[in-house]
Amino acid sequence: MRPEPGSVAEADYADRRQTAERVRRSAETLDSRVTPMVEVTGWLAAYRRAHHFHARPIPFGALRRWAFDPGTGDLRHETGRFFAIEGLRTSSDLDPVDRVQPIIAQPEVGLLGILAREFDGVLHFLMQAKPEPGNVNGLQLSPTVQATRSNFDEVHHGRSTPFLDRFIQRPGRRVLVDAIQSEQADWFLHKRNRNMVVEIDSDLAAHDSFRWLTLGQIRRLLRRDDLVNMDTRSVLACLPTAHDAPDGDGAGGDFAAALRHSFYGDAEPLHDLHAVTGCLTDVQALRVLRQQSVPLRQAYEDGWQRTEDTIRHRDGGRFEIMAVEVTAEQREVASWTQPLLRPCSQGLMALAVRRIKGVLHALVAARSDVGALNVAEFGPTVQSRSAPSRDGGGPPPYLEYVLGAAPDRVRYDAVLSEEGGRFYHARNRYLVVEAGQELPVDCPPGFRWATLGQLTELLAHGNYLNVELRTLIACAHACY
Amino acid sequence: MRPEPGSVAEADYADRRQTAERVRRSAETLDSRVTPMVEVTGWLAAYRRAHHFHARPIPFGALRRWAFDPGTGDLRHETGRFFAIEGLRTSSDLDPVDRVQPIIAQPEVGLLGILAREFDGVLHFLMQAKPEPGNVNGLQLSPTVQATRSNFDEVHHGRSTPFLDRFIQRPGRRVLVDAIQSEQADWFLHKRNRNMVVEIDSDLAAHDSFRWLTLGQIRRLLRRDDLVNMDTRSVLACLPTAHDAPDGDGAGGDFAAALRHSFYGDAEPLHDLHAVTGCLTDVQALRVLRQQSVPLRQAYEDGWQRTEDTIRHRDGGRFEIMAVEVTAEQREVASWTQPLLRPCSQGLMALAVRRIKGVLHALVAARSDVGALNVAEFGPTVQSRSAPSRDGGGPPPYLEYVLGAAPDRVRYDAVLSEEGGRFYHARNRYLVVEAGQELPVDCPPGFRWATLGQLTELLAHGNYLNVELRTLIACAHACY
Repeated sequence: MRPEPGSVAEADYADRRQTAERVRRSAETLDSRVTPMVEVTGWLAAYRRAHHFHARPIPFGALRRWAFDPGTGDLRHETGRFFAIEGLRTSSDLDPVDRVQPIIAQPEVGLLGILAREFDGVLHFLMQAKPEPGNVNGLQLSPTVQATRSNFDEVHHGRSTPFLDRFIQRPGRRVLVDAIQSEQADWFLHKRNRNMVVEIDSDLAAHDSFRWLTLGQIRRLLRRDDLVNMDTRSVLACLPTAHDAPDGDGAGGDFAAALRHSFYGDAEPLHDLHAVTGCLTDVQALRVLRQQSVPLRQAYEDGWQRTEDTIRHRDGGRFEIMAVEVTAEQREVASWTQPLLRPCSQGLMALAVRRIKGVLHALVAARSDVGALNVAEFGPTVQSRSAPSRDGGGPPPYLEYVLGAAPDRVRYDAVLSEEGGRFYHARNRYLVVEAGQELPVDCPPGFRWATLGQLTELLAHGNYLNVELRTLIACAHACY
Repeated sequence: MRPEPGSVAEADYADRRQTAERVRRSAETLDSRVTPMVEVTGWLAAYRRAHHFHARPIPFGALRRWAFDPGTGDLRHETGRFFAIEGLRTSSDLDPVDRVQPIIAQPEVGLLGILAREFDGVLHFLMQAKPEPGNVNGLQLSPTVQATRSNFDEVHHGRSTPFLDRFIQRPGRRVLVDAIQSEQADWFLHKRNRNMVVEIDSDLAAHDSFRWLTLGQIRRLLRRDDLVNMDTRSVLACLPTAHDAPDGDGAGGDFAAALRHSFYGDAEPLHDLHAVTGCLTDVQALRVLRQQSVPLRQAYEDGWQRTEDTIRHRDGGRFEIMAVEVTAEQREVASWTQPLLRPCSQGLMALAVRRIKGVLHALVAARSDVGALNVAEFGPTVQSRSAPSRDGGGPPPYLEYVLGAAPDRVRYDAVLSEEGGRFYHARNRYLVVEAGQELPVDCPPGFRWATLGQLTELLAHGNYLNVELRTLIACAHACY
C-alpha cells in the first residue's frame, strides 16, 4: 500500500478526443518560430560535431564491469543492472525441435517519455539529440526521456535523469499517451517500455541538446534516413487520432487524402475492431510457443559459438553478440564498455495499403516471435530480417509483391535505425506501398485488413502492434 | 502459412452493438419454454443421482501415469499433457527475498466455449451439467465446451470433444465473444483460456447433460451457491452490454436500476477509460515482478514439504498439492487419478460499488500475483484467500469495511466454486456491497473507480480483469 514511485494521479489523464484534435493541429503545423526547420539541421550538425562519441568494437575480454558468469555463461553487468545476454530455449507446434539462442533479457519496464507544451496554441514536443553507441551516425532525435526502472528510484533519492520527474505525478501535468508497448521480440525476451506523452503548462530550462518541435516538423524529419529514433517513432505512433473527419475531408481524393481519412475513427472499416483482434486471438490461442530461460552456455550446444569478439551461429544466423568501448563527452561516465546485438543484414519492413470500398486499409500480419510476451502481436505486411533464402521455406508472403511495386506506388521509403543502446548498426528499410486491385482483399490466415484508425485505437492498449508496425504507423503519418 | 486448426474466418464476427441488444433481450427473458426453470432443478438433481462421480484423496504413490520427475521433482503426466506441478521462484521490489513455491503450469491456451442459438427470437445458451473431480457437489453448470489445445488437433483427426467443431470456422457460425482471459495467477503460471460465445443457426442433437437456457435463467441460477461454474461465469462476463440506455432507464432510481444503468456504455464515468487503464499501467510499469520457472524440488529448500499425500508449506500456507482417484461413469475413461491444488481456506472476493455523481461505480484494485503474465491485472475491491491475520502486514484495505456492511447493503452474497478440474473444494464467498458516502471517492494508489460498462469494455481485451473480478461482473448482472 505504500505509494508507488512515479505513481500517476487520478485526475490528470487528458480527454482523448480533445487530445486528438490538438494533435491534429500540431501535425498541420509544419514549421514553428520556436524551432524553425531551417535551424534544425544546423543544430543537429553542430551538436554532432561538438560531441565526439565513438563506439569501437572490442573483444569480450576488454569489457569492464561486464563478465560471463562462470556457471551459466550469461553475460551480465557486475551490478546486475541494465540488461543481460542469456539463453532462450523455444519450440512451437510449427517447429517442435527445441532451439536455444542468445537473447537480451531486461525484465523491468522502462520509460520512453516525451514532454509536450503549447506554444502559440499549438502542441510542441521536446525532442532530444541523443547519441547512442549503436547508431550509425552518432545521435538521433530521441524522446525527452529514456529511463530505466532504477532511474525512477533515483528521482526519489535526489539524483535524476533530466525531466524524469515531470512524468511523475505533479500539479499541472496532463497525460496524453500512456501505454506499455513491446520491443523486438526476436532479440528481446518479453521486453516492454512504457510509452508516455505528458503535457506541462510551464516552460523549462533545457540543455542545448533539447528542442521543442511540432508534430508536423517531426513528421517531416521522419522522411529522412536514420534521424528519428525508434523510441520516438514508437511513442508518436501512440498519439490518438480524431474520430470524426472534418467536413470535406472524406474518403476518395488523392493518396494523401485517403491516408489521412483512414486515420479517422469513423472511416468505414472492412471488419469490426473485434474481428480484427480476433485474427490475433486466433494465433495467440492456437500457436503453441514454448519459452524457457536457460543458461547462455546451452546455446553453445545448439550451434552458437563464442569467439574472442562475437557470439554467432556457426551457420551465420541473423544476428551476433559483440562488445564495444564507448567514448563520450556528454555522459556522466566519460567512457564505458557494453555488449550490443548486431543484426547480420538490413531488414525490410513493408506495409501494404489499398482502398477497400473507398477506404484505405493496411494489411497487418499476426507474428509469433520467440521472445513474445503473449505468443503473437500484429506486425507489418512484410517483416523480413534477412535475405529471403535464409528465411526457411521460401520468401515470406507479399515480399515479392512489395519489392516489385512500381516506384510511384511506394509512398514511403526510408532506412531507419533501431535502438542504438542495445543494437549495433541495426537498420531496416521501411516501405509504405499503395496497392491496387491486383492485391486481393482475400488474404491468408493470420493476415487482416484494418484501417489506420483501427490500428491507432489498438495502440491505446499494449501488445497489439509490434515495434516495426508502430514505426510504419508513424511513417504513414509522414505521408500526408 | 498452413491454415490454423480452429482458425476463425474473416467475416463471421457479429456486430458488437447488435449483439449487446440481443444479449439484453435474453437477459430480460427470465424463463423459457425451451427449458422451463421449474425443470432445471429436477434435471440437475436427477442427472447428479444418475452419475456417480467420486473423487477420493489418495497418496501420491497411488497416482497412475503421473509421477515426480527424478531430476526436477516436477509432478507430470507420462504423456507430458494436461498440466504439471512445477516450481516458481519470484521476487518483487516490495518483497525482494526470493521465494519458491509450487505452481500449476499449463502453458497452452484452452477453449471455454458457449454455443448460442435463437429460440422464439431470444438467444439461448447451451449449458452442460458437468462433473469435475474437485467440485464439492459433483456437477455444476459449465460451458458447452471446455477443451485443451490438443482437443483441437483431435477434431482434425476424427476424434472429437462434443461441439468443439462448432467453434471452428464453418458456415452459419457467428462469433459473439472472443477474448483470451487469465485464471488464478497465484495458483497458475501465465494460465490463459480463450473465452468464446459462438452463435449457430440450426438445432443440434444434444446429450441429456446439455440444456438451452436464456441469460435471464442463467443469471437467476447464479444466485445459488456452487451451481454456475467458474468457466461459465468467466465467459458470460465477457458478453457486451449496450451503449445507449433505453428511454427511461436512466441513473437514479433503486439499486437495481442504478446497477443496470452502470452497465451502459453511456453512463457518465468518473474517469476516462484510459485514466482507468492508466492505474493498471502504473502498477505494470513500476512493480518489478521477477518470475523464474524452477524445478519443484527447489521449493523444498524454501519451507515446502512433501509427505505421502500432500505438498504443503511447513508454516501452513495458503494451499497444498494433493492427489485424487476419480471414478466416473460418463467419461471416456471410467477411472483415473490426478493431482489437484487444495486451498487451505475459503476466500473472500468483494466488490464495493457506490454512486458517484449519480452513477454507480465499482472500486477495482490492480493486483500483482506471482503467476501473472503481465505483472498485474484488475481484481475486486477485496481479494483475500485466507484469514486476515495470515496476509502479512494486517488485513487488506476495505476488508473490514465489506465485512462490516449492513445486511441490506449486501446486494449479492453466494459461495461459488473455482475450477473443479484443477482445484479441490476451492470455494470463495463473493459479495457485491453497496457503499454510500462513508466510502470516500478518494482511494489509495492502485485502486480505481470505474463504471461496470467500462469494465465490460475492457473485457473485449485480455488480461485487464482477473477471473475473480470477472465472476463479480457476472454476479452483478444477477442483481438487477
